[in-house]
Amino acid sequence: MQRIPDAAIRRLPAYLRWLTECEEERVTSVMLGQATGYSSEQVRKDLAYFGAFGTRGVGYDVSALRDEIYRILKLDQGVRAIVVGAGHLGTALVRYVDQGHQVRHDVKIMALVDNNPMIIGTQVGSLRVEPVDRLEELVRTFDIGIGVLTVPKEGAVAVGDRLAEAGVRAILNFAPVAVCTHYPEVFVQPIDLTLEMQALSYFVGQKAHHRL
Amino acid sequence: MQRIPDAAIRRLPAYLRWLTECEEERVTSVMLGQATGYSSEQVRKDLAYFGAFGTRGVGYDVSALRDEIYRILKLDQGVRAIVVGAGHLGTALVRYVDQGHQVRHDVKIMALVDNNPMIIGTQVGSLRVEPVDRLEELVRTFDIGIGVLTVPKEGAVAVGDRLAEAGVRAILNFAPVAVCTHYPEVFVQPIDLTLEMQALSYFVGQKAHHRL
Repeated sequence: MQRIPDAAIRRLPAYLRWLTECEEERVTSVMLGQATGYSSEQVRKDLAYFGAFGTRGVGYDVSALRDEIYRILKLDQGVRAIVVGAGHLGTALVRYVDQGHQVRHDVKIMALVDNNPMIIGTQVGSLRVEPVDRLEELVRTFDIGIGVLTVPKEGAVAVGDRLAEAGVRAILNFAPVAVCTHYPEVFVQPIDLTLEMQALSYFVGQKAHHRL
Repeated sequence: MQRIPDAAIRRLPAYLRWLTECEEERVTSVMLGQATGYSSEQVRKDLAYFGAFGTRGVGYDVSALRDEIYRILKLDQGVRAIVVGAGHLGTALVRYVDQGHQVRHDVKIMALVDNNPMIIGTQVGSLRVEPVDRLEELVRTFDIGIGVLTVPKEGAVAVGDRLAEAGVRAILNFAPVAVCTHYPEVFVQPIDLTLEMQALSYFVGQKAHHRL
């Protein structure tokens, strides 16, 4: 199987969610594209990466496609995450996942840590905030693969290194600084909300937009 | 000027931030790439879209590059945003921007609205939560170009349509559903935190990762 580009991997969960919710037996790339906001060409190209080819006029088998994406993303094995930073954003994240926005419990937040004594020990959703000193121990105990960084810029690089050393292999980084630059084995997905809004500024002045 | 791909536009703010903070007079694509987590080839390709070509061994003029990206993103004109939904995530966002994570005040959140009478009228950072009924009026009064959707899935499509009709041209959508599908003039950037974590699951099992 050829390597699937990161951008395609990032679109698979959106397809997966819609496939999980839809009540059809078969879907076309046009339906899947409209529901998720991508072009039908994009959908066909993405799915072809792992050998899923629709039949013209008939489309894809929903159940088979769903299982295949689930398997590609390794969600069938389940994955556990730790959130570092129990501020506004970290708290919002934990509660968001707690509130059952997830269709299946394939990604589970196992721990929430912070370095603020005023916050440690408080309850956020179903989790108790643990001291950041316990980070390595928690990662090992729960076999955690994903770290979510919602700490301020100043502490982010050091925490990123600690997560990498402890064995975390993917990081969702909300801090406005590059982390784990010396760990090629760690995949970092940056999400900077200010940058996202800055990028949107470009589109505010556009007359019409064609999704690529 | 050729059309710049969306993916490149989304990387420009990251370059911009580092250029604003760095103290060099000239930077190379290697430096810029290392600081932002992209390959030097990617950096050169992105900057070449708008005619910025570095000189081999000398690099780019920091000040000129910074001004050019600022202009490309239309940040020199300033852009105003409204946040719809004053729950955990909406509140986190407003406070995040309030706390001065922004280098310049080029993107400004002007209003925060909700439909919950218990929340309307409360203070979040520097903003008072306004009723969602005032959405259209607020968009027009403040000449708002960006809408940030942090409402539950159920209300998202209707609110997206209202934002589009009111004149918003770019939406940052945290709701797990496609919005503004019938408004080609509105650019929608979906950010689904659960999906981001699902996509990361793929990388947890990888041995090494090469950024594309």
